[in-house]
Amino acid sequence: MFNDGRLCFGGDYNPEQWPASVWAEDVALMRRAGVNLVTVGVFAWSRLEPAPGRYTFDWLDEVLDLLHAGGIRVALATPTASPPPWFSAAHPGALPVTADGVRLHHGSRDTYCAAAPAYRTAARGIAGALADRYAHHPALALWRVHNEYGTICHCEHTARAFRRWLADRHGDLAALNDAWVTSFWSQHYSDWTQISTPRATQYLANPGQLLDFRRFWSDTLLAAYREQRDLLRAANPSIPVTTNYVLGDWVPVDHARWAGEVDVVAVDHYPSAVDIGAEEQTALVGDLARGWARHGSRHHGDPTSTWLLMESAPQQIHTTGRAHTKEPGRMIRHSLAHVARGSQGAMFFQWRAPTGGAERFHSALVPHAGPDSRVFREATDLGTALHRLAEVDGQVEAGVALAVDAASGWALRHPGMPSDRLDHQQETAAAHRALWHAGYGCDIVLPGDPLTGYRLLVLPALYLTDDDTAQWVGEYVTGGGHLLATYLSGVADEHARVRLGGYPGALRDLLGVRVEEFHPLAADDQVRLSDGGTGRIWAETLRPTGAQVITAYAGGVLDGQPAITRHRAGSGTAWYVSTRPDDATYRRLLDEAARSAGLTPVCPDAPAGVEAVRRRAAHGSWLFLFNHTDTPQRVPARGTDLLTATAVDEAVQLPPGGVAVLREH
Amino acid sequence: MFNDGRLCFGGDYNPEQWPASVWAEDVALMRRAGVNLVTVGVFAWSRLEPAPGRYTFDWLDEVLDLLHAGGIRVALATPTASPPPWFSAAHPGALPVTADGVRLHHGSRDTYCAAAPAYRTAARGIAGALADRYAHHPALALWRVHNEYGTICHCEHTARAFRRWLADRHGDLAALNDAWVTSFWSQHYSDWTQISTPRATQYLANPGQLLDFRRFWSDTLLAAYREQRDLLRAANPSIPVTTNYVLGDWVPVDHARWAGEVDVVAVDHYPSAVDIGAEEQTALVGDLARGWARHGSRHHGDPTSTWLLMESAPQQIHTTGRAHTKEPGRMIRHSLAHVARGSQGAMFFQWRAPTGGAERFHSALVPHAGPDSRVFREATDLGTALHRLAEVDGQVEAGVALAVDAASGWALRHPGMPSDRLDHQQETAAAHRALWHAGYGCDIVLPGDPLTGYRLLVLPALYLTDDDTAQWVGEYVTGGGHLLATYLSGVADEHARVRLGGYPGALRDLLGVRVEEFHPLAADDQVRLSDGGTGRIWAETLRPTGAQVITAYAGGVLDGQPAITRHRAGSGTAWYVSTRPDDATYRRLLDEAARSAGLTPVCPDAPAGVEAVRRRAAHGSWLFLFNHTDTPQRVPARGTDLLTATAVDEAVQLPPGGVAVLREH
Amino acid sequence: MFNDGRLCFGGDYNPEQWPASVWAEDVALMRRAGVNLVTVGVFAWSRLEPAPGRYTFDWLDEVLDLLHAGGIRVALATPTASPPPWFSAAHPGALPVTADGVRLHHGSRDTYCAAAPAYRTAARGIAGALADRYAHHPALALWRVHNEYGTICHCEHTARAFRRWLADRHGDLAALNDAWVTSFWSQHYSDWTQISTPRATQYLANPGQLLDFRRFWSDTLLAAYREQRDLLRAANPSIPVTTNYVLGDWVPVDHARWAGEVDVVAVDHYPSAVDIGAEEQTALVGDLARGWARHGSRHHGDPTSTWLLMESAPQQIHTTGRAHTKEPGRMIRHSLAHVARGSQGAMFFQWRAPTGGAERFHSALVPHAGPDSRVFREATDLGTALHRLAEVDGQVEAGVALAVDAASGWALRHPGMPSDRLDHQQETAAAHRALWHAGYGCDIVLPGDPLTGYRLLVLPALYLTDDDTAQWVGEYVTGGGHLLATYLSGVADEHARVRLGGYPGALRDLLGVRVEEFHPLAADDQVRLSDGGTGRIWAETLRPTGAQVITAYAGGVLDGQPAITRHRAGSGTAWYVSTRPDDATYRRLLDEAARSAGLTPVCPDAPAGVEAVRRRAAHGSWLFLFNHTDTPQRVPARGTDLLTATAVDEAVQLPPGGVAVLREH
Repeated sequence: MFNDGRLCFGGDYNPEQWPASVWAEDVALMRRAGVNLVTVGVFAWSRLEPAPGRYTFDWLDEVLDLLHAGGIRVALATPTASPPPWFSAAHPGALPVTADGVRLHHGSRDTYCAAAPAYRTAARGIAGALADRYAHHPALALWRVHNEYGTICHCEHTARAFRRWLADRHGDLAALNDAWVTSFWSQHYSDWTQISTPRATQYLANPGQLLDFRRFWSDTLLAAYREQRDLLRAANPSIPVTTNYVLGDWVPVDHARWAGEVDVVAVDHYPSAVDIGAEEQTALVGDLARGWARHGSRHHGDPTSTWLLMESAPQQIHTTGRAHTKEPGRMIRHSLAHVARGSQGAMFFQWRAPTGGAERFHSALVPHAGPDSRVFREATDLGTALHRLAEVDGQVEAGVALAVDAASGWALRHPGMPSDRLDHQQETAAAHRALWHAGYGCDIVLPGDPLTGYRLLVLPALYLTDDDTAQWVGEYVTGGGHLLATYLSGVADEHARVRLGGYPGALRDLLGVRVEEFHPLAADDQVRLSDGGTGRIWAETLRPTGAQVITAYAGGVLDGQPAITRHRAGSGTAWYVSTRPDDATYRRLLDEAARSAGLTPVCPDAPAGVEAVRRRAAHGSWLFLFNHTDTPQRVPARGTDLLTATAVDEAVQLPPGGVAVLREH
Repeated sequence: MFNDGRLCFGGDYNPEQWPASVWAEDVALMRRAGVNLVTVGVFAWSRLEPAPGRYTFDWLDEVLDLLHAGGIRVALATPTASPPPWFSAAHPGALPVTADGVRLHHGSRDTYCAAAPAYRTAARGIAGALADRYAHHPALALWRVHNEYGTICHCEHTARAFRRWLADRHGDLAALNDAWVTSFWSQHYSDWTQISTPRATQYLANPGQLLDFRRFWSDTLLAAYREQRDLLRAANPSIPVTTNYVLGDWVPVDHARWAGEVDVVAVDHYPSAVDIGAEEQTALVGDLARGWARHGSRHHGDPTSTWLLMESAPQQIHTTGRAHTKEPGRMIRHSLAHVARGSQGAMFFQWRAPTGGAERFHSALVPHAGPDSRVFREATDLGTALHRLAEVDGQVEAGVALAVDAASGWALRHPGMPSDRLDHQQETAAAHRALWHAGYGCDIVLPGDPLTGYRLLVLPALYLTDDDTAQWVGEYVTGGGHLLATYLSGVADEHARVRLGGYPGALRDLLGVRVEEFHPLAADDQVRLSDGGTGRIWAETLRPTGAQVITAYAGGVLDGQPAITRHRAGSGTAWYVSTRPDDATYRRLLDEAARSAGLTPVCPDAPAGVEAVRRRAAHGSWLFLFNHTDTPQRVPARGTDLLTATAVDEAVQLPPGGVAVLREH
Repeated sequence: MFNDGRLCFGGDYNPEQWPASVWAEDVALMRRAGVNLVTVGVFAWSRLEPAPGRYTFDWLDEVLDLLHAGGIRVALATPTASPPPWFSAAHPGALPVTADGVRLHHGSRDTYCAAAPAYRTAARGIAGALADRYAHHPALALWRVHNEYGTICHCEHTARAFRRWLADRHGDLAALNDAWVTSFWSQHYSDWTQISTPRATQYLANPGQLLDFRRFWSDTLLAAYREQRDLLRAANPSIPVTTNYVLGDWVPVDHARWAGEVDVVAVDHYPSAVDIGAEEQTALVGDLARGWARHGSRHHGDPTSTWLLMESAPQQIHTTGRAHTKEPGRMIRHSLAHVARGSQGAMFFQWRAPTGGAERFHSALVPHAGPDSRVFREATDLGTALHRLAEVDGQVEAGVALAVDAASGWALRHPGMPSDRLDHQQETAAAHRALWHAGYGCDIVLPGDPLTGYRLLVLPALYLTDDDTAQWVGEYVTGGGHLLATYLSGVADEHARVRLGGYPGALRDLLGVRVEEFHPLAADDQVRLSDGGTGRIWAETLRPTGAQVITAYAGGVLDGQPAITRHRAGSGTAWYVSTRPDDATYRRLLDEAARSAGLTPVCPDAPAGVEAVRRRAAHGSWLFLFNHTDTPQRVPARGTDLLTATAVDEAVQLPPGGVAVLREH
């Protein structure tokens, strides 16, 4: 495999940004820092193919040889995320078009339409040429196709491809009209050519069209990936192929679905919160990546739940209006939190900070100040730490399954929803955050994934619930599982059509409740709950049809009416939460649900602010402990701390911000 | 008439959104709820004319027959607010263009240019076909043309039509140059072809051009309406024709001017405030609609001041970022507040909530949950209430006239005004709110309307004051009327050109004041007044030239200078208010002005928070009482409460949120 | 010279906005107010050339003759900032295009592309015709070319011109690729035709491209100016030529570079703050204008540091969302603050407020209310005051030099910077404000300007520091000068490429510090300093390499680390400030730096809130004193107050808001 038995450490290395004279120093510094894997060539298209069909591989030969001589393995990227200027000049029709009809111009990166035939041809060309030349290079450990697939377009190529995709999906126009409910506002299509992408229009757009446009782009980008992957695989089937995911609700990619098409799930992660939220996001993304990996591996018969953190920032957290500099020790804490959750290493963007270009101030392992810098010193420490953790193995301990669904996230952001604060990703994050603070290990699952071994299934606003998903949840619960579903779950079908008869539609009977009407809350508003907590964003007029009321609304028009319920269904239990509880209430609620399902926290004696993750293999177990507080913490445990190679007899002493990784006895 | 002697109850019914199997249940539920009028076909164009010139009326035949058999009358709509996809595909040049030059695409509703000949031809086609087939259907009670006229466009069709309209309006280019003051910034036009619509330009646009563009669109949309109306009338002159107004400051429609062209004024009303502001808006819109109706009826010789609430939301108030669910009892309170003000009933959008489409979560009389729901139960109660109020008749008691002018509203929103918070509609609402809380009945009038019977005329920022309007106001005051004018009234002429010599221009002598300069206030700023109140938005350096100072500014650069004045003019009195008083101050001020004009509130003994509206006919009077507080209220009165059919000897006991309608003794 | 030995008073006079019957009254009122210079014709193109090549000069003949007869001199403008409608209609390709590709339309002013050949031809045409006719008119004192050059465009004319300009600047593509660091994101250009203007693109744009695009526009607009200037000069070399600068960070003009091309620097100034900030801005702009004038005069061999306030508002301060009316006395205070700093007078936009047009509510010397108004009365007072100050002469007393650089301002606003609050203009303003409140006279200098006579040089975020600039600063300091540089100075070269090895790059050794990493702060965040002050926007991990720590950070991750340092370098001293200090701290810091450099305030005994500016000539000195407080102030001084013609023996008594101008003994 690409990781050669060790955890990976390194990042994007762009030698084309530097004179050749710097390359030897690069390799020497990489060795000093313990780097063992670098991604090369991500944005080198114009250097590799300076004119159509003319390739200049000599410099890359030299770089790969140098790296190989230095013992550093290479994830070789195809550079298709940034076509050269000559491409855009020759193919203006392959430049992307916005919903307003604005044709974008060359001048950044990713400025192409992935549905344009000229682009696809050129992308296959350079990928094939790289495959031909480097598929058997001894430094090659991994192919990284493209970079952060995620662009959309509204050009005529796209419109044609969209219509073909729709015909494939729906079969005939009658089915499409039915799925999109075009009977509303006289939108009945009588010919395929009448359908365009959801361009700027007079007023609210059709939600079915919007949802299918997202799905179309996920499939179209995946097809572009597959074309390259197949070329690379054909050249040398033993080299794994992947593409690095970019996260964000603007990304029209169903990462879970893609996971079956990559040999290893690779994720770029840049937290957006600067406080403890950055650690919460890190934990969530690590669990997401592992969940995608497990989901994907079901499809290619090589079950695994490891993955790779392909990019992260050594130094900065990009947040509103500025870059926040990570505090000392935080880089290693974030990196090991990913490793704890199954990442096969920690990779960064990028190796060396450039003097110019749009991301001249993106942080790097070798910053503008050079290796005499805190960042490089911490990177070296991280390299050491990672090499000490090579033995860590096995599955992450998790008794809770948290379901996510990209399409539900897309659908909840559509115009015309009862509130503009509905967000499947935020709901997922809120549930995960509550579990994380309560100390429970959690696996992300996709609808339909096996649920064996999980005592509690959490559905956070799983808006789109097709019949199969309803059945999947139902069988889990009636078979003895515990379920906690939050508001807006079960409401719509796979075409985002609302299910009639009372919300939450497909889950109504299972949850033993019937919702007559919604009460979306104002941005600064909250409802009180009978247990002293509060709810935000949402409330509902909820009538139990079998469920027991656990918590009621207190005050306001819903005073005394049910807010949180619990229902016996078959051998199982189904909770329903009709508002977004405040964090403390949510934590208590999930703690109660987990305990009543028979679960205990990973490290029940860990003090507040200490995160514990356990990896468990046939031959042993490892406990990761992270002190996210600014005071020293003591955690009862026994074993050997791999980072310090010291025995722990009774308890680990964690300094503020400290990390320990115990091989447990 | 369309209302068949009863108050109307019903809403938009879109059977094309449902299989035919649902239609019988629809009619049964309508009967259960007391529905007696439904609007059919508003968005059914693609179902009625699936291909150009090919009509499929069979399903509509069936629906109308079903409704007729159920005793439910029909407002048959022409579906021209949403052309079918085939139309847009065949006529891309009829798709609208924004000021930036962006051509909008099909995908919503109202995506056409009403100045495009192809659109107008197609609209006449479907309207004519409907007229031919249904003009004599026994269920037909009313034609509803189109839906919420209000779109604009900047395409070449529009530009040509705009130039023709300008030539009609101004006669020659010299007059246009003069009206638009094109001597500023070298904008003198020497040929009609040089004039475009106010497209995106480098910096501030010409205010004359902007104002005429709004007027042009009002006239163009009206012409589109007239074409259809004339076809419908020709088919059966006995069926009244209307179009439903949409409100909002983006609407380029002069509703008062249109009122002369409809057989009944029909208004859609969706309040945007969720607190008592929703009730204030309801009262204002009811008064506006009645005012338009009265104004319009002067032109077609059938004087009336009744009108129809054509659309409202059973359940939701659309407000910033979310839908607010109306509290129990609020639907009936809003509905009866409109009826009290002359609406011939209460109609809703829409009958049954669809599973999809952009407005899948718009509230409905039959919600997603079905008839077993609070909304449907309250709708049934409302149906009962409306039928009990059939006898209510006569004019609304009102001693105050409040003048509004659409064009003043447009002009005050132009760029280059001294403040971006100047808003004729907001000023109108503030004055109306003050009168409403003070308990005075109020009629909306348009400049030039007869003022006989009114003791007080209020002009809220009547910015555009042409010579006729100045004369109309002057004659009212000198003839003994009381006037209260607020800042920016009288400042400009009909072309939005500022009148020289000192503000408020055309009203300077009548008000006995001369304003040397404006003092626009910051958004978070206010000025203190000598009576303890405060002013916002605006202040002025005001010199009395005959007026008496009532209130002065206190503190700041205007300390001690006049803020509110009163002037004897002829036999009348003219107040001038140079700032926007806070609500309590405004209420006291209007109360004082009304009392000094000899007026008393509708129900002087009503406690605070209880609204009273009286209808007075030759054969009796009716008193509507609304308790807008959350405590029970007692209102001294005598009569019979029609809603409960109980006698009231001494006082009405109103529960929180309760309504009573008394036939007075 | 244009000022005829007196200070100028007047403004933009647009007689074409009025019937000829008003002109005589205009001249009479001008004489009453003491007006002696008016700008005529700025927006009169469509009146002067109603059709291509057909000129109508008769009315202008009459106006100039009337003015001349009234003793009023004329700055005759070329009207090229607003082409007539016929021009736009005939040359749609000369209308400007936005970065999104939107073609703007006629309807405002400045709606042309200055790179379009048709526009340039037409502009030369009207300028040449004016030159032919009026170059020897006896009223002519000054040519004012165009108005507020500042527009950009992205059309094809522009793209071609941009490529030509780039070829001139960079010589070959290799140099351009190197300067723009196109190795990042595969942006290597292999043919000039591949380069476009920085149109809308997918993500972050290339900073080198953005910077050169600004520079290109500065040069292109300058070329347009020069063409007209040369025509005017050729017609009568004795008449000076200028163009009036508009300020604002959107303006793509390097005013300092332009200053060598005008015969007098002319500046339009409209403060945007309404409180004391308006006075701070006035002082800064006066110093900027003088600095540009001095810088420019080095190039045309006529050294001068006087300039002209060409436009200001008599009455209003344009601020967010509204116009703020200047308090009584403030117009004269602002005007004399400019005169104190070297303006040869005070000019206003505009003479008479028009009834219409986009700027109908822009303030004027004769407002809508007419001459019986506060504004006109104050204008008359100002005219009197200006005539009493004719004797004032000489250089402004200034011991501090404050460096500004337009390109640094542009580069700091680029996307991809570590904070979106980096702003060279704001940093300049903060330093200037601190000096102003501390009472030190300050000259604005441009990199490379002579520094003889200055004891302290301040570099506020001088981001772009080429080698020459680094040498210029270095020689100043090592030769004994005192330097205070703030964060981000020295960081990048002239192409905005970051200098490696540790910030602040080019100034690292001189300052004796090395910055390892930045710590941009959140918008609402601040860092504490060991001297009790606070810092905002920015902090740094700073390591002294010779410098002494003056102030440290207190608290947070930087606790105890250096914040402000001082370094001996050669015979000089170099301070470095790694954050933006709060105003009080900044004032103390600059006061300390100035005192240790041997400087004293202009008027050491002036109380807080009293501004003092001294002009010193060979034959005497004049002291301007401004009381910006709302209480009376006493300032020890001796001389003759020119405004009141009274002797001052011991102290000046300044009323609130008062001004005195002393001829000192």
